Amino acid sequence: MPAAGSAFVQLHQHLHQTRLLGSISSALYYDQNTVMPAAGAAWRGEQLALLAGQQHQRQSSAVYAELVAAAEAELDADAPPERRRNLELLRLELERQRCLDPALVSALAKAQSRGNAVWQDARARNDFRAFAPALQQLIALRRQQASQLAAAEPVARSPWEILAQPFEPDVSKARLEELFAPLKAELPALLARVATVGARSTDAVASGHRAELPEALQEQLCAELLDSWGYDPSRCQRSRSAHPFSCTLGPQDFRITTRVVPGQPLSAFLATAHEWGHSLYEQGLPRSDDHYFPWPLGEATSMGVHESQSLFWECRVARSRAFAERWHPRFCAGLGSGPASDPWGGAFGFWRALNPLRPGLIRVEADELSYCLHIVLRFELELALLEQDMPVEDLPQQWNQRMQDLLGIQPQTDAEGCLQDIHWAEGLFGYFPSYALGHLISAQLSESMETEIGSIQGLIASGQPSALQAWLAQRVWPLGRSVNGEELVQQLTGRPLSSEPFLTYLERKVEALTVDP
Amino acid sequence: MPAAGSAFVQLHQHLHQTRLLGSISSALYYDQNTVMPAAGAAWRGEQLALLAGQQHQRQSSAVYAELVAAAEAELDADAPPERRRNLELLRLELERQRCLDPALVSALAKAQSRGNAVWQDARARNDFRAFAPALQQLIALRRQQASQLAAAEPVARSPWEILAQPFEPDVSKARLEELFAPLKAELPALLARVATVGARSTDAVASGHRAELPEALQEQLCAELLDSWGYDPSRCQRSRSAHPFSCTLGPQDFRITTRVVPGQPLSAFLATAHEWGHSLYEQGLPRSDDHYFPWPLGEATSMGVHESQSLFWECRVARSRAFAERWHPRFCAGLGSGPASDPWGGAFGFWRALNPLRPGLIRVEADELSYCLHIVLRFELELALLEQDMPVEDLPQQWNQRMQDLLGIQPQTDAEGCLQDIHWAEGLFGYFPSYALGHLISAQLSESMETEIGSIQGLIASGQPSALQAWLAQRVWPLGRSVNGEELVQQLTGRPLSSEPFLTYLERKVEALTVDP
Repeated sequence: MPAAGSAFVQLHQHLHQTRLLGSISSALYYDQNTVMPAAGAAWRGEQLALLAGQQHQRQSSAVYAELVAAAEAELDADAPPERRRNLELLRLELERQRCLDPALVSALAKAQSRGNAVWQDARARNDFRAFAPALQQLIALRRQQASQLAAAEPVARSPWEILAQPFEPDVSKARLEELFAPLKAELPALLARVATVGARSTDAVASGHRAELPEALQEQLCAELLDSWGYDPSRCQRSRSAHPFSCTLGPQDFRITTRVVPGQPLSAFLATAHEWGHSLYEQGLPRSDDHYFPWPLGEATSMGVHESQSLFWECRVARSRAFAERWHPRFCAGLGSGPASDPWGGAFGFWRALNPLRPGLIRVEADELSYCLHIVLRFELELALLEQDMPVEDLPQQWNQRMQDLLGIQPQTDAEGCLQDIHWAEGLFGYFPSYALGHLISAQLSESMETEIGSIQGLIASGQPSALQAWLAQRVWPLGRSVNGEELVQQLTGRPLSSEPFLTYLERKVEALTVDP
Repeated sequence: MPAAGSAFVQLHQHLHQTRLLGSISSALYYDQNTVMPAAGAAWRGEQLALLAGQQHQRQSSAVYAELVAAAEAELDADAPPERRRNLELLRLELERQRCLDPALVSALAKAQSRGNAVWQDARARNDFRAFAPALQQLIALRRQQASQLAAAEPVARSPWEILAQPFEPDVSKARLEELFAPLKAELPALLARVATVGARSTDAVASGHRAELPEALQEQLCAELLDSWGYDPSRCQRSRSAHPFSCTLGPQDFRITTRVVPGQPLSAFLATAHEWGHSLYEQGLPRSDDHYFPWPLGEATSMGVHESQSLFWECRVARSRAFAERWHPRFCAGLGSGPASDPWGGAFGFWRALNPLRPGLIRVEADELSYCLHIVLRFELELALLEQDMPVEDLPQQWNQRMQDLLGIQPQTDAEGCLQDIHWAEGLFGYFPSYALGHLISAQLSESMETEIGSIQGLIASGQPSALQAWLAQRVWPLGRSVNGEELVQQLTGRPLSSEPFLTYLERKVEALTVDP
């Protein structure tokens, strides 16, 4: 540790306070989405805006810039590589902040807020034309932002690539197109195969879906799941919210939320698995003695890696056959005895109910087969809107056409088409691909995990989920931002990220799911 | 409204931001006491300290002092009296802030934090001697604080009086002694009367106390109570916490908490009534269009008045005979049918269970008869410690002697004696009398209320609690800090505050409770 008065220590104190402010915002966000009464929204908005202003000020002030420069000047040949990396990441973020015209920052904040409000209304009324001008304005402002940010980029990047950097550092369009091409080529065929043989299993799945699990039972099963996966109530808290999420309120304070969805009896359970995966990653990030907490190295490296961790626990574990076999008796026991106690007709039926494979219109309800196609569609449309001058007015028709091409279905309304997601309504471009990258990263890491500790299915079957966690805790979580997402995969698997492990995994799963039991 | 650039408007904006920060602290406090996992405490402490520092800075900065002075300079003969009053209150608070040596503020904060920790441990081990040095230090620092604050007081005040000002503006020792003398004189006799005739009713009360109400039923009855008292879920939220409290998170965001206490089946219900009374007062404070929210006039005028509002709903309403008769069937219905469905043996027994009249050692568990005696004891001991050089070492013996004199019982340990309350452990002197004033104010306001709208019991019996609320909403809540507690009573009842209405109320209640049904 450097001397007490050093620039590095001063910078640490500055970052520590900035992180305190950020985590206060997270606490307010958590409260807002779990218990805040509706009428509290306006005041809460003012509280959050005040904190955001303070945070922005701290992250772009001359004082802060001088602290970073002084800490850089202190770096000598003996400086630990972690410190060098931390300062590099801070410098990049600082340069980005300094490129931005404050007038644009403010205009964007207003447009995002307006975009959200207009979208809520337009979606409710299925009126894309009401939303189009707000979207048009957001696109124009984000393009402007990308052009201002271009000066800070260490390499030449297109506007979309620049906007995607905060979510997926160093991502490029070419690389995404390369990764997504096999998905576009092979997933539709897999979906078709399921559709052909799926008719036989439809009844079992539908019956399993009709099973109504009492709310208290769903809550209890979620609690049992978390207990068996190392949930520690002295550091974690689970609440209810309208949409499930996970957030970190402090170095020892982790929250997740779930919801019970009427008519979707397994939704809360799978969402719990998903959000807990996010939380485990956050809990495992490098922060020995909380030292790294305010530093970049203590942060998640990308949204793709974050998503790989939630998808691992949701799809590779909770939707797996071995897991279905272990948990089927618990679900049935909760339903008592008698004919209603096993609406799935056995463990295999329960596994099928955990894995409905049917293309649908809504991304957030999509299964493992079609999910990435929803992402490819959005990625390509974002490029068209931001970089290829596609008129905003063409969006509904383009959306529907691509849904037909990729998934073989078409929405009847824009509300269940191009108005379904909140992202664009808040000017969030460049985010969607991370969801698909999460699937690919999870699959490729799983292969390496199996090489090193044996079959995931075997470990689940023998009741050792802690072995899976231990591997992730040792290999993945402590990396923080020392590597980006692609580097993380290369380092842990010995080869570049590819879509092949994911496709192989899906082919095997489809095969097993569609045979007669 | 003054012109946009006026000092008054600038001051309003300054206060608005200060209030935003304060309400963020309240939100963190609420989270901490309802859902935060234990390990989050250290980081939460840092968050709260950061906000407290910002708030203190805003309330004592030269910029703020100049804004207040400029707004005062703008006052002319036509200025509305509300504005004049707001500025007077701000000026007084500012002068107090400016009298304080920052080194003392910091020393006090540390001593309070240390005091709390030492007290927790000393109470757990029943070791007053371990706590004495911390208490001695807190007394010394608070005396020093009082001597610094003396310069800002508009009239000559004793050290104890100066420390009590934030809780009970303009309070004096002489006035409290005058108000408390009849309580000291008459309450012990009333207690003795209950003890004589009480033996007959002991069985019914004890049986009612033994009644175990299932947790879900207690929750449901609390919800029904709040519904019948105007609880609006779009502005309010009820949660669980270790100790019940009420707090305001924004001009349209009110929270209360309760807890289910094993072995005390009516505790959650009565605590809900109490906390809701606090919340109703906060909800009714003057803030048309939120304009007053950041101003002194939009605040509670004293802790005594605040407590009068919670005690009104708890004691005058929920512990009343008419209320017991209306709610007894609901409590029984929740217990199903059969012999266990009425453990109170009728509405009269239920009313008695709501009013256990027996002196006990613990203030927070005390009944209406003995509560104020607990306060008198603490008030006199505070004076002895702060102004009469009573050695800290004498506290346990003095405490026990006074308990014997006032309540006729003596604690066997200091943990249930002078170590029971947290107040002194945090250097909080001058606060206790407000609890007793709350009882007196509630009783005196109730008399005026009855003169104007008729019998409280009658309105409860005929299912019109909203008439009680309407009176308070019209007469009490909108006064904010336009008057202090005594002025409020004088204004609404036409005579000075006295203990007589409270004693009269208790005598009648004791009479009714101790007759054979």
